Amino acid sequence: MTNKTDPRLAELRGNIDALDGELIALLARRLDLVAAVAERKIDLGLPVYVPEREDAMFRSRRAEAEGRGVAPDLIEDLLRRIMRESYSTEGARGFRCVLDDPRPVVLVGGRGQMGRLLHRAFTASGFEVRILEQEDWDHAASICEGAGLVLIGVPIHATLEVIEACRGLVPPEAVLADISSLKAGPVAAMGAVHPGPVVGLHPMFGPTVGTLAKQVVVCCHGRDEAGYGWLLDQIRTWGASIVDAEPEVHDRLMGTVQALRHFATFVYGTHLMAEDVDLSRILAMSSPIYRLELGMVGRLFAQDPDLYADIIFDSLEGPGLARRYRERFDEALALYEAGDRDGFRERFREVSEWFGPLAQTFLTESSALLDQARDRLKI
Amino acid sequence: MTNKTDPRLAELRGNIDALDGELIALLARRLDLVAAVAERKIDLGLPVYVPEREDAMFRSRRAEAEGRGVAPDLIEDLLRRIMRESYSTEGARGFRCVLDDPRPVVLVGGRGQMGRLLHRAFTASGFEVRILEQEDWDHAASICEGAGLVLIGVPIHATLEVIEACRGLVPPEAVLADISSLKAGPVAAMGAVHPGPVVGLHPMFGPTVGTLAKQVVVCCHGRDEAGYGWLLDQIRTWGASIVDAEPEVHDRLMGTVQALRHFATFVYGTHLMAEDVDLSRILAMSSPIYRLELGMVGRLFAQDPDLYADIIFDSLEGPGLARRYRERFDEALALYEAGDRDGFRERFREVSEWFGPLAQTFLTESSALLDQARDRLKI
Repeated sequence: MTNKTDPRLAELRGNIDALDGELIALLARRLDLVAAVAERKIDLGLPVYVPEREDAMFRSRRAEAEGRGVAPDLIEDLLRRIMRESYSTEGARGFRCVLDDPRPVVLVGGRGQMGRLLHRAFTASGFEVRILEQEDWDHAASICEGAGLVLIGVPIHATLEVIEACRGLVPPEAVLADISSLKAGPVAAMGAVHPGPVVGLHPMFGPTVGTLAKQVVVCCHGRDEAGYGWLLDQIRTWGASIVDAEPEVHDRLMGTVQALRHFATFVYGTHLMAEDVDLSRILAMSSPIYRLELGMVGRLFAQDPDLYADIIFDSLEGPGLARRYRERFDEALALYEAGDRDGFRERFREVSEWFGPLAQTFLTESSALLDQARDRLKI
Repeated sequence: MTNKTDPRLAELRGNIDALDGELIALLARRLDLVAAVAERKIDLGLPVYVPEREDAMFRSRRAEAEGRGVAPDLIEDLLRRIMRESYSTEGARGFRCVLDDPRPVVLVGGRGQMGRLLHRAFTASGFEVRILEQEDWDHAASICEGAGLVLIGVPIHATLEVIEACRGLVPPEAVLADISSLKAGPVAAMGAVHPGPVVGLHPMFGPTVGTLAKQVVVCCHGRDEAGYGWLLDQIRTWGASIVDAEPEVHDRLMGTVQALRHFATFVYGTHLMAEDVDLSRILAMSSPIYRLELGMVGRLFAQDPDLYADIIFDSLEGPGLARRYRERFDEALALYEAGDRDGFRERFREVSEWFGPLAQTFLTESSALLDQARDRLKI
């Protein structure tokens, strides 16, 4: 092949190799600088992540790139990826503690996956963390003694029972909180067993995320916001954002979206198995979009069946919702079996209108993501 | 705020600003070098994209990064993103033409979205492109005269009729090909109307991709591979990969995966509308994973209802498949309504086993993608 010997090509490739060496050196320096900024901010008691400042930075970098003939999206994508690297090593250097004199945190069910994630985050923020697991209940009173927060993170079906078991254990001025994926029942129950500050939290992510940066935690008010405000502030220092919701609204939305979506994915997985679809054949034929569609189904089945049984059986809002969903299914099936293309198109347009401008937003967002998925493909 | 005045913080930020300026300058130089390499390769008649060389390059860059304390994944992600930028501007500089003396290409239905994508690619490769649209049939004979390829890209339900209309129009030694999403019928029909080389293609992507780099095109053999081989080679120069399939296998897999998946997504969209779910509320609460799940539904409804009506009504393999899918739905509903968690978990494990190691692959892949989605979130 000529490319082995063409001197011009060899020279250009040598230049690219040298340039990439400069790029790596630049990256190492940038990561060090960002780490120094984070440390300085912690010393000054400032928040590490400030969205407004980030926006301003991107605007200025985009303009600078454009001025030099580099696509603004390219520099923004690269900087966002570099910044993720900084977030993911942040916990290792520690987080700011929002309290001057933090009292111990008790994690009930703290040896589960989500418990371990929180354990790391609290420890990295200077809190003493104590675990209260099933086998520790004989010592529950001494474990909870002097605690500033008792945080319950156990499977949904055990949550109410565990809350009841906490009666009298939580120091009166301590915060009692839970992280189950239903909120109305637990928040009411916590209010009944504990006279002090009460708050219900729902982390909107699984324990596999690694870092809490840019994740969302839903917050349902229980009692005495002034008493638990520090906990929300502490979660914000980990980079997560807090979204308020009334417990009942939260539960209804979760049933409709989260539980039913998992249910639909479960059904689709059983269908692929029943049809014994040749997955390797399909994957060989798949462009990024189909690979992602299939991946969103397959990823469910790499996870814990108990977790999904809990979410579906405990938070799907009664049989009514699933039944109504099946009615929609039958309506679509009827259109299909009648060969009613016009009816299909009409319904399609109705749904488009209902989604409104969000449909286009979703298309744009997911297309950008698919571009990134494609970057990783070797073809 | 102290950060406005802290001199150490200001100094560090100034250093980051300066460093990002260097980064942008480096990027501009790298893009120029890659463009020069591509031009040199085209001059030498070499393929622009060589997966093995890319692999070797990543291995060496990862090792170099690790040696300097930079995460190997970080440099690989950044380089992949930079390389995408090079791919997307590649067509603008032209592609290699695999034929010494290319004859004209006729795109039947070439004013559609996919037709325009192919038009650009053929033109950028030095082919004369002629369009044969509905309104041009009076001049069809002169449009097809001297053509080296007649490529049919019309809606599925019109494909067979258009193929029949091509009888006698295609020069005997020219290639007759189609890009519809069903292959058995069109490939047989093309073989019946044309005595020369025949091949069925199915681009596994929508016209919104922008570039064909790293996309997949399924190829169903018709007749005289030696006669149409140049077309596959030409498609490969655009960066796409060709995957062979028997027409019947292709059609069955597409029905099971593509058409039924779209059908399921359509049903889910109608369900969200019927429940009148508060989308903005849901989005405010959504971490990347839920936003992506919802986005994969919503994106459908930003697209062309006719296209999806065609895919579902024409390529869903008879009512049997959709009916069997509904049986799976009813089985899951029965488990749920009976409160049979054990039955659910058992079924879940069966599906996990059926997915095998792919479930974990999908989880890992989609998690990496979600990390990227999160990079873009402002929270």
